[in-house]
Amino acid sequence: MSFDTLQSKIRSMKNPTVAGLDARLEYVPAAIVQKQIEAYGETRKAAVEAIFEFNCGLMDALSDIVPAVKPQSAYYENWGWEGMEMLERTIRYARSKGFFVIADVKRGDIGSTAAAYSEAWLGKSQVGEEQIPGFDADCVTLNGYMGSDAIKPFLKDAEAEDKCVFALVRTSNPSAIELQDMVAGDRVVYKVMGELVDRWGKTTSVGEYGYNRVGAVIGATYPSDLRQLRKMLPHTFFLVPGYGAQGGTAEDVHYAFDRYGRGAVINASRSIMCAWKKTGHNGEDYAQAARDAALEMRDAIRAVTPIL
Amino acid sequence: MSFDTLQSKIRSMKNPTVAGLDARLEYVPAAIVQKQIEAYGETRKAAVEAIFEFNCGLMDALSDIVPAVKPQSAYYENWGWEGMEMLERTIRYARSKGFFVIADVKRGDIGSTAAAYSEAWLGKSQVGEEQIPGFDADCVTLNGYMGSDAIKPFLKDAEAEDKCVFALVRTSNPSAIELQDMVAGDRVVYKVMGELVDRWGKTTSVGEYGYNRVGAVIGATYPSDLRQLRKMLPHTFFLVPGYGAQGGTAEDVHYAFDRYGRGAVINASRSIMCAWKKTGHNGEDYAQAARDAALEMRDAIRAVTPIL
Repeated sequence: MSFDTLQSKIRSMKNPTVAGLDARLEYVPAAIVQKQIEAYGETRKAAVEAIFEFNCGLMDALSDIVPAVKPQSAYYENWGWEGMEMLERTIRYARSKGFFVIADVKRGDIGSTAAAYSEAWLGKSQVGEEQIPGFDADCVTLNGYMGSDAIKPFLKDAEAEDKCVFALVRTSNPSAIELQDMVAGDRVVYKVMGELVDRWGKTTSVGEYGYNRVGAVIGATYPSDLRQLRKMLPHTFFLVPGYGAQGGTAEDVHYAFDRYGRGAVINASRSIMCAWKKTGHNGEDYAQAARDAALEMRDAIRAVTPIL
Repeated sequence: MSFDTLQSKIRSMKNPTVAGLDARLEYVPAAIVQKQIEAYGETRKAAVEAIFEFNCGLMDALSDIVPAVKPQSAYYENWGWEGMEMLERTIRYARSKGFFVIADVKRGDIGSTAAAYSEAWLGKSQVGEEQIPGFDADCVTLNGYMGSDAIKPFLKDAEAEDKCVFALVRTSNPSAIELQDMVAGDRVVYKVMGELVDRWGKTTSVGEYGYNRVGAVIGATYPSDLRQLRKMLPHTFFLVPGYGAQGGTAEDVHYAFDRYGRGAVINASRSIMCAWKKTGHNGEDYAQAARDAALEMRDAIRAVTPIL
């Protein structure tokens, strides 16, 4: 599914947000964890089943109000292959509930390795006559430090499968500046990366809403950069992390959108997943708390940015 | 295991090379693939078992002459969770055969996400009272585009578990120049990354051979950069891809070593894995062909760079 699909879902829900599915075990209410430990002992299997139950509960609570989910691969890899099996189940469940699924994997490698990563996350691998999907997300995040060689194989699969990608441009973390803000004449590294994203995007088809298949990750925590990059990259869909826990506000992320309130999706992870920690009910209400937090975020963003 | 362990293995075998375990299914001799398809049909399971048999055959043929192996995560991820299960088995088998294991994952993310990746590849995750490893490699490759936030969590686990990391500095691919060669005054991006690697390394302990726990990935295909970076980074162990198929020669990689022929390990993947394709025996001799290619590479490097 391309950015058109995502934009359509956003418009119908009037909600330009994506919920991170990035659960550390300590984000899962203790009762859920305990039940799985009783079933499977203190094992990876117990951890993985607790997180899966939590993920499904969150998705059930959010599917009519939030258009997209973003599982972060790290929180599945840390449980070894059992975590990856659960990631496949999570993605499958998300798609069955109608979510647009962004696999946040930030992969970046070259040549046949990039092609294998693309098969893993967007495309299919071949055995004999069979074409078999891997994790089969709608969209994937990428790291372009190695240049075009790391991106192009994904664009081929994106075009063939009607999918899309986000490449890192300006990340939301404090140490982002160490490399990304290095100045060369009047250009900085993250703008060069922005130009590369634009160049890669121009080799792909453009959707109804005017966005091509190569989006950009641009953090909410640097709003003036967000504003400049929005002007610089009119055909690039933005994925904006850093809202909420990391300090980004509805005013900050306003700059990510075009004048119709389109062209961007704002991520929140902990503020939704861990909303139950603030209600004083030991997590019994985690689904409702997540829903309330998601609605609050939606309304805060809509108050500043009407979604047309 | 730290770079000291790797350097000791290299010295005892007089061979500063690492064999990539990056098998696409077409690198595996047809007879092996066919046998698994007969057992499991045209499925992921068949692909995965064929690659595992091939990996083990390669490792059996190389374990007394090659000190390290480098499985590339992409070639396991493309088979979904079943690929990741086989990657765990491959790493376990590699360690049982005495190889130093570099998980080539090029992960790069921040904060608690970086911590989860570190648990996945070097450290342990906790369930109740149990500390459970993930893929449990000796060493991992990282991408520092996001700055220190993406690296530091790994250094904590590396110190605790006596392990180490390689961060991308100068990659071997043609499009590496697009971002990495951007000039700012008298500095280029990859040298800034080199300085960051040096800074991160200085926060870790230094081994007997004078190398800290943060190595650098520096491609063989840019030998003059390799020479400059060797001078600039005397306490940084190098992982050098790009030998053989990508065009790097023994003369090129000579610059990666210090004057004792230490401080670097040179990767070869396809030239070893696919050596059987040049012998005209349909892959029956893949293990011997891999061994011959590894010995040839070892001798070519040693002829230019004595290992003391």
